[in-house]
Amino acid sequence: MRIIRNSVPAAEGFRMPAEFEPHQGCIMIFPERSDSWQYGGYAARKAFVQVAEAIARSEKVTVCASEAQYDNARAMLPPEIRVVEMSSNDSWARDYAPTFVKNDVGEVRGIDWGFNAWGGLEDGLYFPWDKDNRMARKLCDLLDMDVYDKRDFILEGGSIHVDGEGTCMVTESCLLSKGRNPGLSREEIEDNLKKYLKVSTILWLPCGIYNDETNEHVDNICAFTAPGEVVLAWTEDVNDPQYAMSKACLDSLESQTDAKGRKLKVHKLPLPAPVCMTEEECSGLDICWDEPTRTPGERLAASYVNFYIANKSIVMPGFGDPMDEKAKEILQGLFPERQVVQIYARDILIGGGNIHCITQQIPVRALEE
Amino acid sequence: MRIIRNSVPAAEGFRMPAEFEPHQGCIMIFPERSDSWQYGGYAARKAFVQVAEAIARSEKVTVCASEAQYDNARAMLPPEIRVVEMSSNDSWARDYAPTFVKNDVGEVRGIDWGFNAWGGLEDGLYFPWDKDNRMARKLCDLLDMDVYDKRDFILEGGSIHVDGEGTCMVTESCLLSKGRNPGLSREEIEDNLKKYLKVSTILWLPCGIYNDETNEHVDNICAFTAPGEVVLAWTEDVNDPQYAMSKACLDSLESQTDAKGRKLKVHKLPLPAPVCMTEEECSGLDICWDEPTRTPGERLAASYVNFYIANKSIVMPGFGDPMDEKAKEILQGLFPERQVVQIYARDILIGGGNIHCITQQIPVRALEE
Repeated sequence: MRIIRNSVPAAEGFRMPAEFEPHQGCIMIFPERSDSWQYGGYAARKAFVQVAEAIARSEKVTVCASEAQYDNARAMLPPEIRVVEMSSNDSWARDYAPTFVKNDVGEVRGIDWGFNAWGGLEDGLYFPWDKDNRMARKLCDLLDMDVYDKRDFILEGGSIHVDGEGTCMVTESCLLSKGRNPGLSREEIEDNLKKYLKVSTILWLPCGIYNDETNEHVDNICAFTAPGEVVLAWTEDVNDPQYAMSKACLDSLESQTDAKGRKLKVHKLPLPAPVCMTEEECSGLDICWDEPTRTPGERLAASYVNFYIANKSIVMPGFGDPMDEKAKEILQGLFPERQVVQIYARDILIGGGNIHCITQQIPVRALEE
Repeated sequence: MRIIRNSVPAAEGFRMPAEFEPHQGCIMIFPERSDSWQYGGYAARKAFVQVAEAIARSEKVTVCASEAQYDNARAMLPPEIRVVEMSSNDSWARDYAPTFVKNDVGEVRGIDWGFNAWGGLEDGLYFPWDKDNRMARKLCDLLDMDVYDKRDFILEGGSIHVDGEGTCMVTESCLLSKGRNPGLSREEIEDNLKKYLKVSTILWLPCGIYNDETNEHVDNICAFTAPGEVVLAWTEDVNDPQYAMSKACLDSLESQTDAKGRKLKVHKLPLPAPVCMTEEECSGLDICWDEPTRTPGERLAASYVNFYIANKSIVMPGFGDPMDEKAKEILQGLFPERQVVQIYARDILIGGGNIHCITQQIPVRALEE
């Protein structure tokens, strides 16, 4: 693995493909952390296994597990899924596995962004985050890929979405947060995205999902389903604080055009009724730096937008909510050639994210095309 | 990775290729253990890096490093070498990386033998050895290979050599030791080797190198250089306890024939003068279970036979001994198509083995042939 420090992907013809372009595989991380996953992570691991199995039906899945959890992971996952030992602080492959870029002849490289647990000492969610921050490079090494070193720029994979045709979508609440790159202007941040993802247009949404502790990652509120088309998490309940947030995003999307000059077609994806932590669930979480990570009644950032686009399926969350079926129908309509698989994801959500957050796609290489 | 428990390699047409057959790559483990490697392992790591670099000139090298040593390994090794995170108790890839077997259509699988640190609670060299024992399976998973589970049989890779044509060579001192498989008869041990390596003839040497704490592994005393030909570690000093040992091995070799019915051609490879631990070296080793691992004046099991056969080179140890050059010439004569590279290996030897002990070859797959 060559570590590239003196160049940027765009300058060498590497761009980030859209998630709906073909994958060689997917990376996940086995959950373990006792202040993230209730009651020792047993239920979370079962949910992760279901997600991995669903994805593995159409692409190779590699699951990273700690030394302590390796045997459990190996025993719980089917043989077609690869388990590799790799240390991490938690299990958010989307946010600290590499962002992969690809050139016209099908070479794939990784980007190693800086990671500081969603806000570092300002408003980060745990300390330390050193093992997470070292994963992108280790994964590129494992996959025998060169890697761009951009650790001086804090970015999580869940805070960006691309259409593969020159457009990147982000939220202001996250990318302009104090805890990430306070020394950089909006223009400097745009410039980094343009140089590393090979995009020309940044769509800025003002915010994300209410109470989303990632400073409202874009991948929980809005996602590309095709070039020029997005789904937006939506509620019709004007009394829900989410209403104003989703409306602000809709207004923002309607006022912008993508890199190809298109107005975006926005599909509303309904939200489930508020999902809140129970006393029982909170009792099953260890304390993190003298503070509970969750409190009873706390609203979680539940959203159907947090789905993964696999080669032949859409793996989306369900919450045991009457809206589950409707959301599934909408996504099925938008992805007619993929099978939508819905997985009950409350045990992933409790950890602070959902199916998109625990996965990272690897684009196909030339060899496999 | 499928774990195969209900079959054996020979029954499915898988055999262990000889080391001089083509490799897809080589596995090594970065040294770290402070009671094995003097003064925190700094000198050992430099020697390991030299070995890895020499091998990497003609085959892909994957180096396993602990979480703690990953960054060091990555920084010290050139980019063409892959570094992966993997826990271990020490750094003997030969002994606990998988033994690889291959079938006629070029599929490669691993064997996961049991490992108990060269003798378990009887006369093993450290405790615990759980991380080492789990490496074979992890490596097969990493390499996306199926693995035969034979953990109920204790065997180190350094205790066997094969000619790729039906013959396996072992030492009685090791394979019949009390600390490995005391419940198995010589015939039962032979039967396991035949079934797992797909060999028909076991050549038993009585012993190995004097004071070799592995119970005298075969790979330090005798190695195949071609079918029907071996090199045997030799001394002309009749007062050296090694003389009687090497002579017993020579007599044994001359009294046996290989699987093809050939008498073996034995090439004598001279030994260096005795290599002994210094006070200074012993002072740089941490205590292991209240005991020093080495004592000043202790003779180490130095032998030129402990070389690695890479695709286009022979990577052999040197000891700063007048015999270094002679041994190199002999091996160069026996491997005229490979370049012999000699690496000063005292810092590997102090840990208890040598270049063959810290490497494990992976045969080429069909795809690569």
